[in-house]
Amino acid sequence: MKDIKAYIEQHKDRFLNELFELIRIPSVSAEAEHKEDMLRCAEKWRSLLLEAGADKAEIMPTAGNPVVYGEKIIDPAKPTVLVYGHYDVMPVAPLELWRTQPFEPVVKDGRIWARGADDDKGQSFMQAKAFEFMVRTGQLPCNVKFMLEGEEEIGSGSLYAFCETNKELLKADVILVSDTSMLAADVPSITSGLRGLCYWDVEVTGANHDLHSGIYGGAVANPINALCRMIAGLHDADYHITIPGFYDDVLVISDEERALMAQAPFDEEAYKRELDIDAVCGEKGYSTKERTGIRPCLDVCGIWGGHTGEGSKTVLPSKAYAKISTRLVANQDFQKISRMFQEYFEASAPEGVRVKVTPSHGGAAYVSPLEMAAYRAAEKAMTETYGKRPIPTRSGGSIPIVAGFEKILGIKSILMGFGLGSDDIHAPNENYPLQQFFKGIETIPYFYAYFAEMFPVSGK
Amino acid sequence: MKDIKAYIEQHKDRFLNELFELIRIPSVSAEAEHKEDMLRCAEKWRSLLLEAGADKAEIMPTAGNPVVYGEKIIDPAKPTVLVYGHYDVMPVAPLELWRTQPFEPVVKDGRIWARGADDDKGQSFMQAKAFEFMVRTGQLPCNVKFMLEGEEEIGSGSLYAFCETNKELLKADVILVSDTSMLAADVPSITSGLRGLCYWDVEVTGANHDLHSGIYGGAVANPINALCRMIAGLHDADYHITIPGFYDDVLVISDEERALMAQAPFDEEAYKRELDIDAVCGEKGYSTKERTGIRPCLDVCGIWGGHTGEGSKTVLPSKAYAKISTRLVANQDFQKISRMFQEYFEASAPEGVRVKVTPSHGGAAYVSPLEMAAYRAAEKAMTETYGKRPIPTRSGGSIPIVAGFEKILGIKSILMGFGLGSDDIHAPNENYPLQQFFKGIETIPYFYAYFAEMFPVSGK
Repeated sequence: MKDIKAYIEQHKDRFLNELFELIRIPSVSAEAEHKEDMLRCAEKWRSLLLEAGADKAEIMPTAGNPVVYGEKIIDPAKPTVLVYGHYDVMPVAPLELWRTQPFEPVVKDGRIWARGADDDKGQSFMQAKAFEFMVRTGQLPCNVKFMLEGEEEIGSGSLYAFCETNKELLKADVILVSDTSMLAADVPSITSGLRGLCYWDVEVTGANHDLHSGIYGGAVANPINALCRMIAGLHDADYHITIPGFYDDVLVISDEERALMAQAPFDEEAYKRELDIDAVCGEKGYSTKERTGIRPCLDVCGIWGGHTGEGSKTVLPSKAYAKISTRLVANQDFQKISRMFQEYFEASAPEGVRVKVTPSHGGAAYVSPLEMAAYRAAEKAMTETYGKRPIPTRSGGSIPIVAGFEKILGIKSILMGFGLGSDDIHAPNENYPLQQFFKGIETIPYFYAYFAEMFPVSGK
Repeated sequence: MKDIKAYIEQHKDRFLNELFELIRIPSVSAEAEHKEDMLRCAEKWRSLLLEAGADKAEIMPTAGNPVVYGEKIIDPAKPTVLVYGHYDVMPVAPLELWRTQPFEPVVKDGRIWARGADDDKGQSFMQAKAFEFMVRTGQLPCNVKFMLEGEEEIGSGSLYAFCETNKELLKADVILVSDTSMLAADVPSITSGLRGLCYWDVEVTGANHDLHSGIYGGAVANPINALCRMIAGLHDADYHITIPGFYDDVLVISDEERALMAQAPFDEEAYKRELDIDAVCGEKGYSTKERTGIRPCLDVCGIWGGHTGEGSKTVLPSKAYAKISTRLVANQDFQKISRMFQEYFEASAPEGVRVKVTPSHGGAAYVSPLEMAAYRAAEKAMTETYGKRPIPTRSGGSIPIVAGFEKILGIKSILMGFGLGSDDIHAPNENYPLQQFFKGIETIPYFYAYFAEMFPVSGK
């Protein structure tokens, strides 16, 4: 790839300044107060795509936050890459744990610190800059389409319908996504699988109003105690999920494949040290990497009820709430699992309380075959820039829409992400190493070149 | 009691106005922001006591909120009644459930609606007005001392030391407390027992920061799941508390006594209807009244952790918190129980989390013998004004300092309260029926008269 390193060196300050402008827009999709910011962020992306060299770029409405679509069609006979990313970010709470302001990016210790620095503003932005490089240096070998959504962090609710409506517009030979991580800065890897997801809001109601815990305590069901009992009942002592039928569709991975996966470098002591935990904890019979890679899990993401302020109020509350999510693996049907949980959880309500489960969002797991041209192109591209062959890994995270793309558009995705485990996405002090940011921009043009070489040109 | 009814009729508007001034001071002891209000409220009480006829009244400092002390000594040879009450109130959250402003009292449907209307501003104020009546009409038969504290709702932390230091000042023959309820407006009762209390703050820590629930979920302990499991483990399927030794000191009540207690009128269907619950829920083998009267219980008063805001953040949190309390019965040592819980709960931490239990406050249970002069005087007084003999009941609530008085000052208390179960103390829409308020003022002077008659005058 001619001059890519020099191009990055020459433009790196501008790249960072442009990215920082994007990051400064607090596009938190989960919070209604940021509705205007979503539109500002979409508008910013539209300009970025045009400046990078798109023939056209527009903001397309959906039932929720709009999609930014841009394209450059060089030759209908050439293969087409559809770049997918998202411009929304996670909420920032708890704010007090941030060492810098989440929406005021700073570079320190070789990293960009900000909400969205990695997920997914930093990573999507690499795609835009690699595209810019190819356009400006006359090295673009494929048609390119960009699709940036504003609801990934809340389940991509509107994007499914958008894809259904715009099948023709979105026609492509592969979807290229930079929204995942590598094993380590010196251990390149490609995400060959993603877990699926279900998310539920749970409400437990006891008496119709808060009661004095002395006068009623012991005689009237406490919704917090009840909720805890129900949540505790979701796992057995070996951390298997107890919902009947939950594991029925999980594909059993062969011992051989497990042995192969076990070869990926992983230092459990360092992992524990970094998280400051005495022990890892999960489903009996599986290793840490297997627990996040090939096995489903169930976590409470939030819980609240009763007196959560200062002091010691003796109250027997009327309500308790939880946000519960599960991560699914290939072959598990998220809609089936969602119904299964809802029925099981509601039925597990102890005497004296009422339970309401509201499914929030979900998505299927995804597997990317190692034989497909896009995987091989990504593998070659990373081998070129990292000097070693990337390892295929299964990520514990979920990008539900990726399974949706396959179902609706019939297009496979390649998950070539440059994040690191230490980037703390979704958490306080999210960051993205400059090295990964620039390496991503350097690697992506190679992907295009190899993909154009390998992809069997259809008669389009 | 000469002219008590006429006196109340003549002064009732003034009584309400004075009480409302007291209620308007938001003396929430659990919230640091109300520190100044505590002092204003103490000052208000000092004036009220002087206006009611005390010889002297003063604000006495403690390590925390001050105590208001006032007295009228008519004759050292006469018996002395020490009136105890508290001027602090519970927090008001959740504010959105209040139908009126908590600190702007209104009279509607025959009730005073406000925080503190019953607990304990309304009830303590009855004592002041009954005292005023006796002084102004020359019918005061005893020496009277008033002691109002500002920390009852947070465990009376400073009052124990205050009592130790002021044993001489507080010398009395009985402590008269109006801070409890009657069975119903037409079913007078006297609280012959109170449950004790322990309260703990619990913190569970997993990883050292919030994690992405996809990338780490299933492999790293979730402190919310862990906390739920630990809380669930505190009860067995029959709602017995599982802490080893917890019930060891509980006095077994005879079948005969249980049969007697069962005669108190109680309509379980009405109770369920009023709370809008399908079923009561508690320790197997005991009735609802027994569950709150003679049996200990354990409730989570508050819980929180992870994402508790809008939307569906997929986070594996670093921390989870709970506020847990237990109600104890006679003979259980609250300090022993507090240590027992702390050890058991910390030891029950699953792999991968650390647990910290901080005892917040506690107090012993209390039993008032039906034979003592003060009980008999109260019984006669209520029979006089209600036209029927009051039933002795055991309250599920706790006034830990009452057991403390007995231990430190060697003085028994009589719990002659005029609240009703429907007063929603500690909850939104606290209220106090006017009928109970005026009936209390009417009854209290009879108590003084009978007590003076019955009490064997010591050689003081």
